Amino acid sequence: MADKTDTTSEPKPGDASRNTPPGPAHVSRRRLLGTAGAAGAAALVAGGAAGAAGAEAVREGPDPLSSVGSAAVPFHGPHQSGILQPAQAHAHLAAFDLMPTADRKAAAALMRRWSDATADMMDGRTPQGDELGVALDAGPSSLTITFGFGRTFFDRTGLAAKRPDALEPLPAFTADALDPKRSEGDLWVQIGADDTLVTFHALRMLQKLAAGTARMRWQMNGFNRTPGATEQPMTGRNLMGQIDGTNNPKQSDANFNTRIFVPDDRNGADGWMAGGSYAVVRRIRMLLDTWDNLSLDQQEKVIGRRKSDGAPLSGGQETTRADLNKVGSDGALAIAGDAHIRVASPATNRGAAMLRRAFNYHDGFRDDGAPDAGLLFVAWQADPLKGFTPVQRKLDRGDGLSRFLRHESSGLFAVPGGCERGEYVGQRLLEG
Amino acid sequence: MADKTDTTSEPKPGDASRNTPPGPAHVSRRRLLGTAGAAGAAALVAGGAAGAAGAEAVREGPDPLSSVGSAAVPFHGPHQSGILQPAQAHAHLAAFDLMPTADRKAAAALMRRWSDATADMMDGRTPQGDELGVALDAGPSSLTITFGFGRTFFDRTGLAAKRPDALEPLPAFTADALDPKRSEGDLWVQIGADDTLVTFHALRMLQKLAAGTARMRWQMNGFNRTPGATEQPMTGRNLMGQIDGTNNPKQSDANFNTRIFVPDDRNGADGWMAGGSYAVVRRIRMLLDTWDNLSLDQQEKVIGRRKSDGAPLSGGQETTRADLNKVGSDGALAIAGDAHIRVASPATNRGAAMLRRAFNYHDGFRDDGAPDAGLLFVAWQADPLKGFTPVQRKLDRGDGLSRFLRHESSGLFAVPGGCERGEYVGQRLLEG
Repeated sequence: MADKTDTTSEPKPGDASRNTPPGPAHVSRRRLLGTAGAAGAAALVAGGAAGAAGAEAVREGPDPLSSVGSAAVPFHGPHQSGILQPAQAHAHLAAFDLMPTADRKAAAALMRRWSDATADMMDGRTPQGDELGVALDAGPSSLTITFGFGRTFFDRTGLAAKRPDALEPLPAFTADALDPKRSEGDLWVQIGADDTLVTFHALRMLQKLAAGTARMRWQMNGFNRTPGATEQPMTGRNLMGQIDGTNNPKQSDANFNTRIFVPDDRNGADGWMAGGSYAVVRRIRMLLDTWDNLSLDQQEKVIGRRKSDGAPLSGGQETTRADLNKVGSDGALAIAGDAHIRVASPATNRGAAMLRRAFNYHDGFRDDGAPDAGLLFVAWQADPLKGFTPVQRKLDRGDGLSRFLRHESSGLFAVPGGCERGEYVGQRLLEG
Repeated sequence: MADKTDTTSEPKPGDASRNTPPGPAHVSRRRLLGTAGAAGAAALVAGGAAGAAGAEAVREGPDPLSSVGSAAVPFHGPHQSGILQPAQAHAHLAAFDLMPTADRKAAAALMRRWSDATADMMDGRTPQGDELGVALDAGPSSLTITFGFGRTFFDRTGLAAKRPDALEPLPAFTADALDPKRSEGDLWVQIGADDTLVTFHALRMLQKLAAGTARMRWQMNGFNRTPGATEQPMTGRNLMGQIDGTNNPKQSDANFNTRIFVPDDRNGADGWMAGGSYAVVRRIRMLLDTWDNLSLDQQEKVIGRRKSDGAPLSGGQETTRADLNKVGSDGALAIAGDAHIRVASPATNRGAAMLRRAFNYHDGFRDDGAPDAGLLFVAWQADPLKGFTPVQRKLDRGDGLSRFLRHESSGLFAVPGGCERGEYVGQRLLEG
């Protein structure tokens, strides 16, 4: 499936020319900068020397200096956007519930409106009838918008027969303190971009397009590092200060696609999910006051990695495979028995794997002075029973990190495959 | 005062070399990119051609492609940071109240701790004893931290005799719906940076350093466009979609310094405020559902500017001076009598002026489905009675925009001048 994956991979500077911006002046300005950005990237590849550079060098080298705004992700393709692309600097997660009067036909019309507007916005165009203006001047800024269906969607639209078994409710975990008002929902939307006004505009646009059909159930804001804040792209840090996501499955892994995406040849109730994926969404509050009071040494033992550079405590650097059997000179395991990376490791989970693509959140402070902050955890897998559920069961029993976390909300959504031109997301379900 | 202003002006790429990062590896990586970034900027100046470029071109040209992370603002100088620098992409505003046991000496010690940590963080160094780790790897990312004293600070520290008259409470306005819990406070902190983890780290660091002396009273998150999201730096848009801030005073204006900063030769209770400024902070919620239902034409009449490019309705482009007397072919004023830019114009306010340096905010949605979003308005002036107060009085009576706004919180703070090496912010007040 390498050819398919290519269509949804990280955008390259040259993609900017794909845009059809609102007016001619806009076009020329964007194109001018696109060119200059490519030249700048070439200079970086050349190690700082401002020599001549060909297009080849631009495409192959790292590109931390290219224009943030002009990066565009394709909307059409076998998978929806917002799964394989690196997590952007800003995100809105939101769930909508269908109004009592909305039937399958109304839901289909909404998915059509949402898909059309999304295709426009991801390509840097202003959707028809959009006078909000909030995202004007900015490029698409790597905007992705991902749509999913919750368990309750199928009853409300008379599609219960097509509800996948994979949408069975997740088991309860001891670290759960779930708020039903901020959990689940008929429809789920994940918006990500590298600019806050681009994400806000997309969120408002989708909300407007839902008027009369669906109502917002909950909504959360997330963030990651700004492009260019670090000297080179690297695994991000979470609000505990830990480098988080090192051990994520890679697209180059042999079984990546079968683990993350529902295969094309699936028969049964979820045949319409070919190319899709299941998203587990958890709002995980970090007890940061407690955490920050641990010594650096204690924190590193809980995680099993060095805080400064993410290297496993068994040695090496961030990307070195953790040696779970290594014993230190003191006779103790280098990576403790309850260390997070041991308990979460695929090696101790019969190969269970999910693609984590998380955002930090910070919604001010609670009455006790502790930050209302943590992780908007989003995990992708072809089957939650082979991804999130077994891993979380194990973490729930033996993870030393669990006592610093509270899962405050939860959602499980069927995210259908992408659509081709002229189609809309979910069409195979809603018209199949 | 041009020489003084220079020390706090917009950082240049070359400033990155001023940093003293935690370790040698960090130094070399940052320096490497600093060089490459400069080369990229040079390529942009050269119009996209990747030819040879000298250091001269780098310094003089626009630099949208330089490393976001490595930009550093000086902490020491005649004015505090966070006033003259362009508003960053992310901000935290917070107020702290002194604990009952905290006296003037404790407050002075806190200001010393805060100042020392701020000097480190703004320069990309890890403050002494800081193991939070949240901002590791990132550069200072244009971090600024600004400290102010509220009216109540002076009673609690036995310094009532030094309280400036300018801190007299602001008058009540009809658009006010103020929440006292999110208003005022003994101490005010404004944190801004182009990276969310850098701002969060600074906020947590200040909170930790306040432990035992001051408690957080309120805290708000704000944002502006991400660097590089637009093709060239431009006046930002607010969440109404309007280009906002066009008519701000410029540092090149003849009377800029006397309008914004308290002069050095001030006698009386606020002599310690030399080089300082007064900050008016208002959380202004926008009634976006109502606003977005107006037609584009109606919105533009309310503001007095074209939404697409910010040009005044009297003609020209964004920076063209509005012709408030111009009458259109229909016999009506081109800029309506209650248009926001007419009522707010210095020309109709006897020259009253303030430097607005605002951030957008979005804290999810209210129960009625309307976004809890708007502007964290921060305005700077040498005297609120010649800045915010007369302008807001006028807006309160005649501004067509007022009916789409609710002022939900308010604060007025005395922000002392900057400090020199070895000093701390507020030292002239607390030890004077």
